[in-house]
Amino acid sequence: MNVQAAHTEAPVAHETRYLKNCWYAAWWSNDLPVGEIKARTILNQPLAFFRSADGVAHAVADRCSHRLAPLSMGKLLANGHLRCCYHGLEFDKDGHCVVNPHTPGVAPNTRLDIPSYPLVEKHGMVWVWLGEAEADVTLVPDYKCFDGADERHMSKRDYLRLEAETSLVVDNLLDLSHIAFLHDGILGDSAKADADIKVENTGDAIVVSRFNTDATIPGIFAEFWPDPPKLVDKGTAIRWTAPSNLLNDTGVWRQGTDRSTGTGFYGAHILTPETDETTHYFFAAVRWNVRTQGETDLRIQKNLNEMRRFAFEMQDAPVIEAQQRRMKAPSAPKPLFLSIDVGPVQYRRILERMLRAEDAPAQG
Amino acid sequence: MNVQAAHTEAPVAHETRYLKNCWYAAWWSNDLPVGEIKARTILNQPLAFFRSADGVAHAVADRCSHRLAPLSMGKLLANGHLRCCYHGLEFDKDGHCVVNPHTPGVAPNTRLDIPSYPLVEKHGMVWVWLGEAEADVTLVPDYKCFDGADERHMSKRDYLRLEAETSLVVDNLLDLSHIAFLHDGILGDSAKADADIKVENTGDAIVVSRFNTDATIPGIFAEFWPDPPKLVDKGTAIRWTAPSNLLNDTGVWRQGTDRSTGTGFYGAHILTPETDETTHYFFAAVRWNVRTQGETDLRIQKNLNEMRRFAFEMQDAPVIEAQQRRMKAPSAPKPLFLSIDVGPVQYRRILERMLRAEDAPAQG
Amino acid sequence: MNVQAAHTEAPVAHETRYLKNCWYAAWWSNDLPVGEIKARTILNQPLAFFRSADGVAHAVADRCSHRLAPLSMGKLLANGHLRCCYHGLEFDKDGHCVVNPHTPGVAPNTRLDIPSYPLVEKHGMVWVWLGEAEADVTLVPDYKCFDGADERHMSKRDYLRLEAETSLVVDNLLDLSHIAFLHDGILGDSAKADADIKVENTGDAIVVSRFNTDATIPGIFAEFWPDPPKLVDKGTAIRWTAPSNLLNDTGVWRQGTDRSTGTGFYGAHILTPETDETTHYFFAAVRWNVRTQGETDLRIQKNLNEMRRFAFEMQDAPVIEAQQRRMKAPSAPKPLFLSIDVGPVQYRRILERMLRAEDAPAQG
Repeated sequence: MNVQAAHTEAPVAHETRYLKNCWYAAWWSNDLPVGEIKARTILNQPLAFFRSADGVAHAVADRCSHRLAPLSMGKLLANGHLRCCYHGLEFDKDGHCVVNPHTPGVAPNTRLDIPSYPLVEKHGMVWVWLGEAEADVTLVPDYKCFDGADERHMSKRDYLRLEAETSLVVDNLLDLSHIAFLHDGILGDSAKADADIKVENTGDAIVVSRFNTDATIPGIFAEFWPDPPKLVDKGTAIRWTAPSNLLNDTGVWRQGTDRSTGTGFYGAHILTPETDETTHYFFAAVRWNVRTQGETDLRIQKNLNEMRRFAFEMQDAPVIEAQQRRMKAPSAPKPLFLSIDVGPVQYRRILERMLRAEDAPAQG
Repeated sequence: MNVQAAHTEAPVAHETRYLKNCWYAAWWSNDLPVGEIKARTILNQPLAFFRSADGVAHAVADRCSHRLAPLSMGKLLANGHLRCCYHGLEFDKDGHCVVNPHTPGVAPNTRLDIPSYPLVEKHGMVWVWLGEAEADVTLVPDYKCFDGADERHMSKRDYLRLEAETSLVVDNLLDLSHIAFLHDGILGDSAKADADIKVENTGDAIVVSRFNTDATIPGIFAEFWPDPPKLVDKGTAIRWTAPSNLLNDTGVWRQGTDRSTGTGFYGAHILTPETDETTHYFFAAVRWNVRTQGETDLRIQKNLNEMRRFAFEMQDAPVIEAQQRRMKAPSAPKPLFLSIDVGPVQYRRILERMLRAEDAPAQG
Repeated sequence: MNVQAAHTEAPVAHETRYLKNCWYAAWWSNDLPVGEIKARTILNQPLAFFRSADGVAHAVADRCSHRLAPLSMGKLLANGHLRCCYHGLEFDKDGHCVVNPHTPGVAPNTRLDIPSYPLVEKHGMVWVWLGEAEADVTLVPDYKCFDGADERHMSKRDYLRLEAETSLVVDNLLDLSHIAFLHDGILGDSAKADADIKVENTGDAIVVSRFNTDATIPGIFAEFWPDPPKLVDKGTAIRWTAPSNLLNDTGVWRQGTDRSTGTGFYGAHILTPETDETTHYFFAAVRWNVRTQGETDLRIQKNLNEMRRFAFEMQDAPVIEAQQRRMKAPSAPKPLFLSIDVGPVQYRRILERMLRAEDAPAQG
């Protein structure tokens, strides 16, 4: 893929720095159908996404090199070329300008080429690589818990757009302590705020976890587990990996045993900065140790998605967006980090170290 | 009250300067019911207002010290504490953080405290003090004409939000000459534009007044006065006191006598800057020497409010907001002040003197 | 007219430079009826347009010199004066303040005068002159093809407002090559993209033209020409003159002859910058060598307008506005001009030369 072409653009000065040599979620695979050109801005860059006839996904800069008209307003031709709606220039999947209809018989000048970006499709997601280093498919974030899952055991692959910078959403997710308050009665219980929260730092991942023993089974899990024990142990662990990929593992099991005796779900929270002040939020859940079947599975599928979407859209998003507005106000004081913010503090340190490494001159 | 806490925030540089050591109208008392947390920005500062169980009103900064979530999105507990919706920190009426549920058994660090602001409730209004000097209840603006008034002789305590800086609204009110034109046929008469306007400056108040003799009785007053004389003397005086509190006294009386032989109303116009470009406008009217009773009073009550609201919302507001847009345009010339602007010029001078005094270092 | 008064305003620093000593289209004559004051911003300046009782059109700055209230919110008096809605100051057609109702018997100070701008009405259009040089009526853009035209042979004098800077709209119009793609099937045919395009530069005008021989008659012209030849020659020429006035001449005729044997239409595209990022777009068409009559004329009149409005509003405008947004993005590369952009490149050179001449100190 034509990553080099990206460098023909002047570097942009944004206050917000982003890790570039990594994969960012761009689309749930099933939201990018064959035959369409879809526009999405990622890290402030307008991109056009499309599939060639073989179903392979591609991404190029969403502007014609001629007069900057968005290619996403153009046509995807049968041969897989994008044709600009304005003057008919055609670009292939690598961003090469392959047809200039106004100079028939003459190959288009290579300075008409536009940047293209490596994509990889894995775990039901189209990922894009915006960095200058060679795209490394071994670095795709690990969501293999979704691979080969029975669709009836998964909630909808869903999406929200938040009017807040990505770091505030990561903070929210990596902070289990807010669940007891913001999601009181749905995902948490404000009477249980003081449960012990543990933070593990493996150097390139953070795992924040929390366990309760002797708990009554919470609403959603009572549905997961017909004829459950009266009291259970329960736990949630959420893992962050750079730049902003999270996965929670939440479940209940027989007291004094381990999760293999119970049931639960993995929840993906995959975040991609759209701009410095807005975030693409991809989410989905998949159950493990499924103990139900038939219509119960379908009802749980629906409920699990509705509960999570309600929590994110109606409870998290309004607070995070208000927080962003407060932080942007001219008189805003600095936030104060507390003991519960060990997760957010530690992931920021890892990210800062990775940003410095990316900025450092490569050693030959 | 915890005024000192306010100083933990960095000073803000705004182009617009505001008098700080004075009372600003925040809410009509009956718009701040027990049991609710209400958000309102005053002088660019987001504030949360609420009442404790004893009915006393309080104001704190509308952002949790932890991650800046608005406290107005949280809960007012039975004990009078505000609980942040995000992580459950609790604050008392003085802005002290009294509960951090994530460190049970440990008193919250005092750096979690947030600013609180003195409030006083008087003349049916909740007033807030944002300055650094000690709040002085003797400085509450004088609207005692409303105290103990029969509600049937008052118009609704009403409110408008204007997309214009407060000084333009003060100019509008302190300038009786516009009434003949902008409110022609409702409050004024463009044929009477040249009536003599008098300006008194007492050093800390401005009174602009205007009297006509041998006048026919205007519409609204004909309703006030059953069986009135054929011709009357009539007059309006409007008083400004700092920073932006106005009161008009408008009436008609028997020719050659004084107001005690007639009838009229006081009109409050109480202005509070929301931001540098928007204004809270509180207004209400109360009649004096009431000469009617029963259903006539109720009809007048309704008409008086409707007439004033129409004049302010449909006539004044659109012009003042357009004026603001014109003044903000890049090519805008400076406004020119005319003879009719003596009131506006003089109040600006008093305010300028008060602002300089407030900025001056205090003498020990 | 009182052009000098315009200089009492401070000069404005805009990044975009505009030719000033020329005529800009302000209103189609029939959109400025007697008895109304109409507001329109031109070259970032808010203007108030109105007609005196004799029908002559006038323009003054749309803000009272006193407190900058828009005069377009005021009243047009029977004597042709504009009365400000706020305090009743009156201005004549030359911007002189002629009445200050608050100083009866005293002539208003001349510093109350506001700028007025020369207008001329020609070719069914009201034109305004914003420059410092004396307005020169011989410089009115030539649209005499509309003079005395039978209304049934004209399409509606129509108007669009575009969220894009004027130069992008000129580029669009002066570039015949986009028609084959953007207007494929309506005005053009993408199979014919390689037709030869010719550019003539007369020093103060650019004419871009394109001819096809052996063409089948396109849709709209089949209606123009009952019982037409099977094959025709067809052509379009579009002329630009400064600052942004365009006229196309499009028709079909018998093969190997000239246009006098066929039929076609002139299309006016008259562009006026509203602000640095928005454009007033006036358009209309008039047929030549009309070969139809009666109800056919009325049907063509309707169709010709609908087809052109659809092409401009639904095809050109969205692309040009998207182009503007892409150009404004922080990471936007520069557009690349191709062989098809000879017209746009050459008109920019002429305009640049005229701007430099206007900036140069006049030689005595």
